[in-house]
Amino acid sequence: MFVQPDLGRGNAVNTGKTSSNVVWHHHGITREDREELLGHRGVTVWFTGLSGSGKSTIADMLASRLHDRGVLTAVLDGDNVRHGLNGDLGFSPGDRKENIRRIAEVAKLFTSFGIVNILAFISPYREDRDFARLIQGEDDFIEVYVKVPLEVAEKRDPKGLYKKARRGEISSFTGISAPYEEPLSPEMVLETAESTPGECADRLVSLLEERGIIGSGRR
Amino acid sequence: MFVQPDLGRGNAVNTGKTSSNVVWHHHGITREDREELLGHRGVTVWFTGLSGSGKSTIADMLASRLHDRGVLTAVLDGDNVRHGLNGDLGFSPGDRKENIRRIAEVAKLFTSFGIVNILAFISPYREDRDFARLIQGEDDFIEVYVKVPLEVAEKRDPKGLYKKARRGEISSFTGISAPYEEPLSPEMVLETAESTPGECADRLVSLLEERGIIGSGRR
Repeated sequence: MFVQPDLGRGNAVNTGKTSSNVVWHHHGITREDREELLGHRGVTVWFTGLSGSGKSTIADMLASRLHDRGVLTAVLDGDNVRHGLNGDLGFSPGDRKENIRRIAEVAKLFTSFGIVNILAFISPYREDRDFARLIQGEDDFIEVYVKVPLEVAEKRDPKGLYKKARRGEISSFTGISAPYEEPLSPEMVLETAESTPGECADRLVSLLEERGIIGSGRR
Repeated sequence: MFVQPDLGRGNAVNTGKTSSNVVWHHHGITREDREELLGHRGVTVWFTGLSGSGKSTIADMLASRLHDRGVLTAVLDGDNVRHGLNGDLGFSPGDRKENIRRIAEVAKLFTSFGIVNILAFISPYREDRDFARLIQGEDDFIEVYVKVPLEVAEKRDPKGLYKKARRGEISSFTGISAPYEEPLSPEMVLETAESTPGECADRLVSLLEERGIIGSGRR
């Protein structure tokens, strides 16, 4: 299903004074036009998983592999969203929900312009992810569960957040003091205690090929 | 000034169990990488002006001209933002401000991935536009004042909104019952009662060439 963000405003408008006979033609560039320019389809790849599961690492590695094949990617994560667009939101249930809603809407925009956008957020609630899927549309949404035992994620603890959470310095920390709801039917499960990030990224590249989102091999 | 959205999370992470000796390298694709792939720079072209001034028409025409030269554009306007990302916002002063803030943050994301993004919103308040400029950074922000006498805009009235506003069916309508604050030093002024939309789009293409955002001529 293709969204055509530029259509729907195609009314001819007169310019008034000196150019009253000129019809303001409306040449909306469509999603398909942009996808043709880029040489691939737009899609939203939505990573979900515990802190420390490897979401960001795999997201960046996937972006690298795709970039090397000439695919335009956009990586959205806490670093470029939490401090900007969602800088006004905290971590209450309502704010978490709004956080995911806005991210999903931005992802939809990126996809509608032909970009492969890769999102790396814990996104612990099934309801929120299902809503994100609903916003994108089934054909444009690939949910990837980055799965890891809590003990492994806690041992990695790349940002020292689990330690803080255990000390009670962070409230509502996913996996410790707040729930993580596993996806029921994600498009892919990546078990990062069993595979290297490179293997995970390769599997995702293959999935994008199989779905016809990117061409096979280098262009 | 280039933003590098993917950097800053470059810590090596161990994968735990089976791959405990594998360092999870971090290959962040930068803005420059994406700009090289696309063959042009990212930038935010921010149209401001009355309803009926011609913002959307010129935005779409600019997008067409750029697309024909192989430039990836994203057009953001009321149609794809007000019903999605900002669907929770109304038209109170606070909501208008938040509307512009979010749009500016999304524009910054698009720009950071190398895309020429074109925004067509009335954005009537100088303070909000200056804030948008601040968010983008001076080098990444091109403010375009789509200027037209109120009488001309009202005569065009492509959506019938001025009629409704005059009848009092829309409160706080820019130009009628709410102020429009003209830009003090926009990068470009387009007087749409004096020029055709094609002429306006051509002037903008030239500006983007002069600034080195796109190459000159077809690639």
